[in-house]
Amino acid sequence: MSAGTLYLLPTPLADGTAAAVLPEETLVVARRLDLFLAEDAKSARAFLKAAQHPEPIRQLRIVEIGHQPDAAAIDGWLEPIIEGCDAAIVSEAGCPGVADPGAQIVARAHARGIAVRPLVGPSAILLALMASGLNGQTFRFVGYLPQESAALAARLRELERESRGGETQLWIETPYRNDRMFEALLAHCAPETWVCLAIDLTASGETVMTRRVAEWQSLPPARRPALHKHPTVFALLAASVRNRSSQ
Amino acid sequence: MSAGTLYLLPTPLADGTAAAVLPEETLVVARRLDLFLAEDAKSARAFLKAAQHPEPIRQLRIVEIGHQPDAAAIDGWLEPIIEGCDAAIVSEAGCPGVADPGAQIVARAHARGIAVRPLVGPSAILLALMASGLNGQTFRFVGYLPQESAALAARLRELERESRGGETQLWIETPYRNDRMFEALLAHCAPETWVCLAIDLTASGETVMTRRVAEWQSLPPARRPALHKHPTVFALLAASVRNRSSQ
Repeated sequence: MSAGTLYLLPTPLADGTAAAVLPEETLVVARRLDLFLAEDAKSARAFLKAAQHPEPIRQLRIVEIGHQPDAAAIDGWLEPIIEGCDAAIVSEAGCPGVADPGAQIVARAHARGIAVRPLVGPSAILLALMASGLNGQTFRFVGYLPQESAALAARLRELERESRGGETQLWIETPYRNDRMFEALLAHCAPETWVCLAIDLTASGETVMTRRVAEWQSLPPARRPALHKHPTVFALLAASVRNRSSQ
Repeated sequence: MSAGTLYLLPTPLADGTAAAVLPEETLVVARRLDLFLAEDAKSARAFLKAAQHPEPIRQLRIVEIGHQPDAAAIDGWLEPIIEGCDAAIVSEAGCPGVADPGAQIVARAHARGIAVRPLVGPSAILLALMASGLNGQTFRFVGYLPQESAALAARLRELERESRGGETQLWIETPYRNDRMFEALLAHCAPETWVCLAIDLTASGETVMTRRVAEWQSLPPARRPALHKHPTVFALLAASVRNRSSQ
């Protein structure tokens, strides 16, 4: 008997958008499976219902792996796949394994010879990069930045310095701290540095704006987009002779 | 009169997969527009036909921006959008602006106050990262590596060194040089470094394999995946105390 396949199944970033942001093949696989390794069981059930899974949702096997999956549990989770069952890893929102749990399970699947297949779906990081107009030939996602003020300032200056060669730097923040992050950016980055805010991607209020720090500073507060508690991807690109000539 | 919207319109990575890898909303926008800024006009026409655009393809306005768009032409390309027409940037394959042209046009659209909207579709870089099992909490795409042997070896060692903090490094190669890249990786990286090959993503022959360098070296040639002329994303993650404990 041959092993099953482990799918990486993206989920929508915004409520009610499953049919709009997931391709047919992704939906077809989601509807065909009955074993899911889910970051959060409740949101996985809501997603599978929205994706019109044909079986009663309570009959599906949904194993909650949590935000930080227990390494000791992984081999047990993979056992049904070894035995021939197909399964999928599902995040709360977006792409499993990218700024979300899943990678350790996939790594173990490779080690055990299980075929791994990624499915297409929305990634806030990728959508932000596309829409930013910043350099997409070379870029870096750095996760979360430090919370403490001095450490955050130092890290922002470091990202700006590392970006001088032309590399776009992207990161995320806990949504209720977005305003503080944006103020720190304006306070600690050079006036000519480009800053992109990509807010509520794929949702009805989606807004992507890229401005130099000096332009952001001179924008009347009423024209600044609302960030507080709105999921936002931040990106910066330091100005340099090379970047200036290409912008 | 208000300005139109500039969409970033992803296209399939493999022939014949438009309906499988593009969400309904992406297809709906593609079918509604009649102005396209295309990396390559011929492939854009083929895509729009495959996406079942309702108008005769020859009546659509398809402006070829080329692989390296002429900065002096950008304002002219944006003029119809300023005048109220919606338009989309289209790559030959994948997501515009990500390892593909488009970012300079988007940057200028932001400067001129044009709304920019990214649409969901396949990105080989993102699919490779998801399926690699390597660290997706922090990662970097570095574009193409040097061709010259000594420079390539030095760059691979540098990427491996930079990865020791846990950052996954991803890059691409011109497909007919893939075998040479893979041999260089095995020759110059440490035996315990993880190397992922993500080949023919979304195509029928899709293969994603992640192994340590030493494991790749001991694999019989017949069990190595065919890379020559197959589009491949390469990724590495250096082993470290931190990575070992999480893999």
